[in-house]
Amino acid sequence: MNPLEQLRGRLAELVDLEALTRLAEWDQLVMMPAEGGEARALVAATLARLEHERSTSAEIGEWLEAIPEDGLDDIDRDVVRIARRDWERSRRVPADLAAAAAQAAAEGQDAWQRARAEDDFASFAPALERNVELARRRGECLAEDGQSPYDALLGGFDYGLRSGDLRALFGALADALTPLISAAEEHSPPRALAIGVAEQEAAVRRVLARLGVDTGSWRVDVSAHPFTSWFSRRDTRVTTRYRDGDVESLLSSLHEYGHGLYERQIDPALARTNLDTGTSMSVHESQSKLWENHVARSPAFAEVLAADVSEAGFDVSAADLHASLVGVRRSLIRVSADPLTYPLHIIVRFELELALIGGELAVADLPEAWREAMRRLLDVEVPSDALGCMQDVHWGAGAFGYFPSYALGCLIAAQLWETMDAAIGPLDELLRRAEVAPIQAWLGEHVHAHGRRLDTMPLVRAATGRGLEVDPFARYVAPLARAAHGAGA
Amino acid sequence: MNPLEQLRGRLAELVDLEALTRLAEWDQLVMMPAEGGEARALVAATLARLEHERSTSAEIGEWLEAIPEDGLDDIDRDVVRIARRDWERSRRVPADLAAAAAQAAAEGQDAWQRARAEDDFASFAPALERNVELARRRGECLAEDGQSPYDALLGGFDYGLRSGDLRALFGALADALTPLISAAEEHSPPRALAIGVAEQEAAVRRVLARLGVDTGSWRVDVSAHPFTSWFSRRDTRVTTRYRDGDVESLLSSLHEYGHGLYERQIDPALARTNLDTGTSMSVHESQSKLWENHVARSPAFAEVLAADVSEAGFDVSAADLHASLVGVRRSLIRVSADPLTYPLHIIVRFELELALIGGELAVADLPEAWREAMRRLLDVEVPSDALGCMQDVHWGAGAFGYFPSYALGCLIAAQLWETMDAAIGPLDELLRRAEVAPIQAWLGEHVHAHGRRLDTMPLVRAATGRGLEVDPFARYVAPLARAAHGAGA
Repeated sequence: MNPLEQLRGRLAELVDLEALTRLAEWDQLVMMPAEGGEARALVAATLARLEHERSTSAEIGEWLEAIPEDGLDDIDRDVVRIARRDWERSRRVPADLAAAAAQAAAEGQDAWQRARAEDDFASFAPALERNVELARRRGECLAEDGQSPYDALLGGFDYGLRSGDLRALFGALADALTPLISAAEEHSPPRALAIGVAEQEAAVRRVLARLGVDTGSWRVDVSAHPFTSWFSRRDTRVTTRYRDGDVESLLSSLHEYGHGLYERQIDPALARTNLDTGTSMSVHESQSKLWENHVARSPAFAEVLAADVSEAGFDVSAADLHASLVGVRRSLIRVSADPLTYPLHIIVRFELELALIGGELAVADLPEAWREAMRRLLDVEVPSDALGCMQDVHWGAGAFGYFPSYALGCLIAAQLWETMDAAIGPLDELLRRAEVAPIQAWLGEHVHAHGRRLDTMPLVRAATGRGLEVDPFARYVAPLARAAHGAGA
Repeated sequence: MNPLEQLRGRLAELVDLEALTRLAEWDQLVMMPAEGGEARALVAATLARLEHERSTSAEIGEWLEAIPEDGLDDIDRDVVRIARRDWERSRRVPADLAAAAAQAAAEGQDAWQRARAEDDFASFAPALERNVELARRRGECLAEDGQSPYDALLGGFDYGLRSGDLRALFGALADALTPLISAAEEHSPPRALAIGVAEQEAAVRRVLARLGVDTGSWRVDVSAHPFTSWFSRRDTRVTTRYRDGDVESLLSSLHEYGHGLYERQIDPALARTNLDTGTSMSVHESQSKLWENHVARSPAFAEVLAADVSEAGFDVSAADLHASLVGVRRSLIRVSADPLTYPLHIIVRFELELALIGGELAVADLPEAWREAMRRLLDVEVPSDALGCMQDVHWGAGAFGYFPSYALGCLIAAQLWETMDAAIGPLDELLRRAEVAPIQAWLGEHVHAHGRRLDTMPLVRAATGRGLEVDPFARYVAPLARAAHGAGA
């Protein structure tokens, strides 16, 4: 075998190990009897160690060295380029630092869970400090060309993003959103629907079937927290959860569908290579947010949804269903925030994690800094750390640089939607008729097919013809600030 | 790390890779959307290759060489002994022969499936010939100390068994069973029960719950063919299938329970070593047959089962239920054979595979040899090869030496049951009261706890005080040849 074939053989093996890792996780969260957890953790550790060994081994460097630059086709050139980037990145963190960080992350999650339950930040602080310190050191190892440690960490989720650019973008976003909130709260408050679990299940089945979710290549299950997993283009598994009188299942099933569709529509020519997955956390999130915000929450698709919900046994008008899906209210908790206030929750976290990693904010001062930021950006008073800076698992698990992707996903989705609307729209007309095939095809061609060949910002530019902007998202949320009954007009 | 720690580290890794292999298979058979099969095959191949690499690597030989003989405790001595045996065996087959055999097995299964559907032995013969030839060559490589190739293959499923011993044992078994069949067919013919699927499901849930199957550490699912998988002592998964008006689900769920219980009761001190699994195919099968034949089919437990079935909504007497579970009829198909005729189906296969590997029987002559053996042992005429020598997948998939374990399992189960009856019985009294804890405990202590520390025949001797005999099984089936209504007395 020549060095390119050897490299491709190893990359295919890593694809399989990643699929097994996802399978073990999916099974744990959806199927595994509770007492199987202890053994599953050992299996996961073995898989992680094998994957680390096989993805960082010196042979890969030798193969990369030996592959001639000339004569590669376009795909192989990208395979080699991304393999070199991943391999170099993976070797910059010494094994003992990586192991210490993994251990601190596991212990940090435990400490977080206990501390949050007792609303006791002081008992969480040491574990958090350790994770901040180790993340900063990892960032220092990973940094290239004078990058800051935070930017290096950010690159682990979203290669090529810079915190300076995000700061400017998020500043403009906050300026655009904050004035809208009061009006939106007044005109579009949250509305409850007394829809039961069985009706939600039937409605979710119906609406997903409209989008092409068949039993031959999809599964739809229930888990404590909705998520998506995939084992090939023809084996996609989404989960949701059902709570009585709550429409979250309608939103979350379309959200997860967006993640699933992305992985299904990557160019088949990239199969079994390092390019065969979504390019970044923010683009992945843009695909879920697109189906959640721009489809599930659109007044046009509400007509389709209302028909499905009614067929499922719960009679509801399109206007009432839509009102229950778009209500705006300032709140404390990110995961249940509405589409307008959601990005502000992310900006709070971005500011604070940037300061934590940069050393300008001490862990001890985090609770107060959180309160201040929530007051400034959302005008809410935080009554406790459990409902404040301890609500998310990320930092306790060592994940710094992850949060921005949630807000970037909202912005990218809105910009893609406007571009698509100009290209193949009006999309409202398509949605009203539940004709999603043109939308799927456009996303497939302009976003999904690329896999990892384009990083986030180059992909946004290729798909929309310009850099990432705030205005499309601001235009998307603006109707929420107008009278609710005007929203559908 | 010293060489013993290094060896134990590798063995634990192999335990995890085997668990992942079982998980990928369980998921494929129980959960996977159909179109996921292509990608799953690639994942399975990667796992098999990794497991092969990691279990045959030269380092293992170096560690084994470097581990001092003295100072090992009893368990470590067995860990090292079995590791040496497995490692030496794994390296006797050259990699290209192993790869050719794996490919022939995959192709043979495809050829078998098509040929069986069309009842066309001639189109299967070339693939079968190739598998026979490669199995013989594998057997020649594996043979130790003048072993025949067949005995060497047998050792892959059941270490230490010899075909000469099996020939004597099976000869005596055939002599004991054949005279019973006519009488049994007359007194104990198969009886149908018009029990529906929903009632079967509820009854299976009830009876398994009596045996300790809880949702915290077990799963019970449906698959095309019942099987058992396990990922630790606290994560056991059995499957069954339900067909209207068929009591197979009651038998098969207890059968699979027996496999599951075995793996759960291995000494925890053996966890994450090469000793932490059932010792052989035949002992595994003895555990499933024990619960199927001696519990599910016992007249005493029929009282418990009938109560569960009645509670599940299908009113039935213990006598009628029992009669539906023990009916005897000469038939063509192994998998649906009754407990009395079942071992004769195995003897047919044992004779023929011994002759195929030994070179005394040509593949072209197999169909006629099958007809002759079925006539001689079961007195039935085989109308087609699809219902004859092509009914099982094993040979087309290169598995020679596997079949004997099915009959040995029946014999071992009967001998264990008699020994247990003398030690803690009368077992009928326990079964009538659904008191299975003493049975579970006795099996745990005398059979399960050993893991792979004792091979089949030493285990039988340790548990029962004597070598494997035919008489206990003959005594078990004898009541079937007496008047049916006397069977429960």
